[in-house]
Amino acid sequence: MVTDQNAFIRFMLQIPESSKKKVVIIGAGFGGMKLAQKLDKDKFQVVLIDRNNYHQFQPLFYQVAMAGLEPSSISFPLRKAFQNTKDVIIRVAEVLNVDIEQKLITTSEGECSYDLLVLAMGAKTNFYGNQKFEEHTYGLKSLSEALLLRNDLLKDMEAALLEKDYEKRQGYIDITIVGGGATGVEVAGALAELKNFVFPKDYQELDTKEVDIYLIQSGGLLLQGMSNKSSMAAEEFLTKMGVKIIKNTKVVDLVDDKVFLANGETLLSRKVVWAAGITCAKLNGIPETCYVRGNRIKVNDHMQIIENEGIYVIGDQALLSNEKYPDGHPQVAQVAIQMGQHLANLLNGKSNKSFHYKDRGSMATIGRNKAVVDLPNFHFQGFFAWLVWLVVHLFALIGVKNKIFVLFNWIVNYLTYDQSLRLILKADAKSKR
Amino acid sequence: MVTDQNAFIRFMLQIPESSKKKVVIIGAGFGGMKLAQKLDKDKFQVVLIDRNNYHQFQPLFYQVAMAGLEPSSISFPLRKAFQNTKDVIIRVAEVLNVDIEQKLITTSEGECSYDLLVLAMGAKTNFYGNQKFEEHTYGLKSLSEALLLRNDLLKDMEAALLEKDYEKRQGYIDITIVGGGATGVEVAGALAELKNFVFPKDYQELDTKEVDIYLIQSGGLLLQGMSNKSSMAAEEFLTKMGVKIIKNTKVVDLVDDKVFLANGETLLSRKVVWAAGITCAKLNGIPETCYVRGNRIKVNDHMQIIENEGIYVIGDQALLSNEKYPDGHPQVAQVAIQMGQHLANLLNGKSNKSFHYKDRGSMATIGRNKAVVDLPNFHFQGFFAWLVWLVVHLFALIGVKNKIFVLFNWIVNYLTYDQSLRLILKADAKSKR
Repeated sequence: MVTDQNAFIRFMLQIPESSKKKVVIIGAGFGGMKLAQKLDKDKFQVVLIDRNNYHQFQPLFYQVAMAGLEPSSISFPLRKAFQNTKDVIIRVAEVLNVDIEQKLITTSEGECSYDLLVLAMGAKTNFYGNQKFEEHTYGLKSLSEALLLRNDLLKDMEAALLEKDYEKRQGYIDITIVGGGATGVEVAGALAELKNFVFPKDYQELDTKEVDIYLIQSGGLLLQGMSNKSSMAAEEFLTKMGVKIIKNTKVVDLVDDKVFLANGETLLSRKVVWAAGITCAKLNGIPETCYVRGNRIKVNDHMQIIENEGIYVIGDQALLSNEKYPDGHPQVAQVAIQMGQHLANLLNGKSNKSFHYKDRGSMATIGRNKAVVDLPNFHFQGFFAWLVWLVVHLFALIGVKNKIFVLFNWIVNYLTYDQSLRLILKADAKSKR
Repeated sequence: MVTDQNAFIRFMLQIPESSKKKVVIIGAGFGGMKLAQKLDKDKFQVVLIDRNNYHQFQPLFYQVAMAGLEPSSISFPLRKAFQNTKDVIIRVAEVLNVDIEQKLITTSEGECSYDLLVLAMGAKTNFYGNQKFEEHTYGLKSLSEALLLRNDLLKDMEAALLEKDYEKRQGYIDITIVGGGATGVEVAGALAELKNFVFPKDYQELDTKEVDIYLIQSGGLLLQGMSNKSSMAAEEFLTKMGVKIIKNTKVVDLVDDKVFLANGETLLSRKVVWAAGITCAKLNGIPETCYVRGNRIKVNDHMQIIENEGIYVIGDQALLSNEKYPDGHPQVAQVAIQMGQHLANLLNGKSNKSFHYKDRGSMATIGRNKAVVDLPNFHFQGFFAWLVWLVVHLFALIGVKNKIFVLFNWIVNYLTYDQSLRLILKADAKSKR
């Protein structure tokens, strides 16, 4: 943090001098990582800025929250990723402002000039402006949020043991998931597995059949955007596993351990997981006119903010519309990765083509032996889909060690029906600063 | 926490009714775990209370702090440990008071009566009453402290990249370890390995040779209590690895990033690891006369607080003196485990013998291929000692999965000279409570 009193000192990110063009990438998600890897380091000096010192594999956050994986198994330190790559400078900082005229960004740790700027900042949870929902529900867009949910889930089970009042106890053990997209479905499935296989062993004093898992979907279909067949299969899987799916309604209010729905129902549940949508964070200095729906930034075929040469946007934050995707591309990892590769090709001078998204399909896992996969021309569900899901996610992880750890965790979990990661890890050591 | 306004409600730990004698064990460390496992459940109902929901393997905390292992690899959830053991009731709570007359303890979560009470609360860092040291140095007696040190170590390396002033930069990258016992020696060794093998790759912009590791020892020998040969070997190993050992002095003051020593030297180092001794926490309700040196509680041969039948103490917290150990037994895991087993035998009615500590030896690891081992009649150092250290610690870990994870981590580390656990994991998600 900038704390020095002397206003004359200019805090700088101390990027080493270079004769090459300086490309500053904000965000080390799927898009930013791919771009940093693929840019020609003989032509460019790359500055990669992220608020964390690691790349995180968002599609598995829900397994961290459900005590199935450790954060380190699905993260990779940026410095290690680029140890053997020259001219990639890593800075851990929060970007606060961009000055388009001066080609300068301001971060929490100092300023940094650029020749080319790439925004790859991703998306965050969308609470649709509702302060109460933001304060009292659990998002799943960072590892620390995932760990918070894990801790509170386990703490509430402990609290339930001490609570003799039926309604209060239900408040502790029940959980509400808002949003029937991939995240909501995967959280609900993982919770159902905990309820069915782990809780009865861990909490023999409780009647764990009383644990209710509610999945609230505003529309009539789960996994909107996937095939009808997959949507139906997901609903059937979840229902069989004991998840209570409540469709065509939404949460209107939260009071203590009560969740009020638009259809008049009241649920007893202290924990509400908010997976009802995403939006992008705005960045100071980007003209308001650039923002479109969900705070995405409109870009042309070359990922540029139109009429602002030198500034590019990729991934969830970019809205690129073409004939096939008039409303923009889906905000998923594959699009971000392909945009990163595309922009690297453009900047390296290897290609001048328009961006063309190659849809590799989409998938969601519900539980052991249960997943749904939509390939462009083929949809399938069940055990084989689950195997495909495992293999695809395993290969997408960065790092051989991470792959081995995740695979080993999954095997242990599959064989024993029981992980041993259920630590309530307190961050209660007093800071020394 | 007890938050209800109604003063008439008695908060209870809700222990199920039982016709058996109720043994309440405070602390699930090495001693408490062993006792809970070995007590005859046909005779006793066991209530195991710990502030954490997991058992932690303290001897490897330093590897967590040095980004070599994950907390979950050296911890084991209590509920999982006792899933298949009937009549072991687990409660996660902080014990606040014991009422000896009424045979009742008060915890943060409610009250609980007992027939027999066992204190197995272990020890904490001893700051010798110095508030400043307590506030500004890093202890290593809990997983959250270990993670805090890891985070700040990595944060300071990032900060050093942005600091052009030589002295301030040294403050960020240098580190002082106070105390030349096993913990201090092991931390210093692990840090030296980071400095020699990891930092040069991660921080190519820095001259990592400038990282200074100071080990301050008040006496003239490291590893006091071990053999002279081991002490000398440890000193030689550390010196060769680049650790600056400063003997026969102590820290007198800390101001900003300066450490002032009694010998007049001033070190530049924001981070000070405090491994200079341990003490026990006192428990309200235990008569003052029971406490002896280091707040340990004097017990007789049957681990009882003398003249208070029904209250036992084991592990670091107990001071049992006999002919061989007139000043009490060493405060190490082996003593705690053997005391737990001994007390279980006594209470089960299997034995009425006095406690006899079987010294299996002591050991410390300094770095790869470098450890010192003192067996009762044989002392050895170097590669073979290091192998013995690895095997002993691996076998002592609870859980097959933990053993495999730790072993795999060590193998990766050994082969690659480089872990990938260097995440600055922020606990910054806003609490929902």
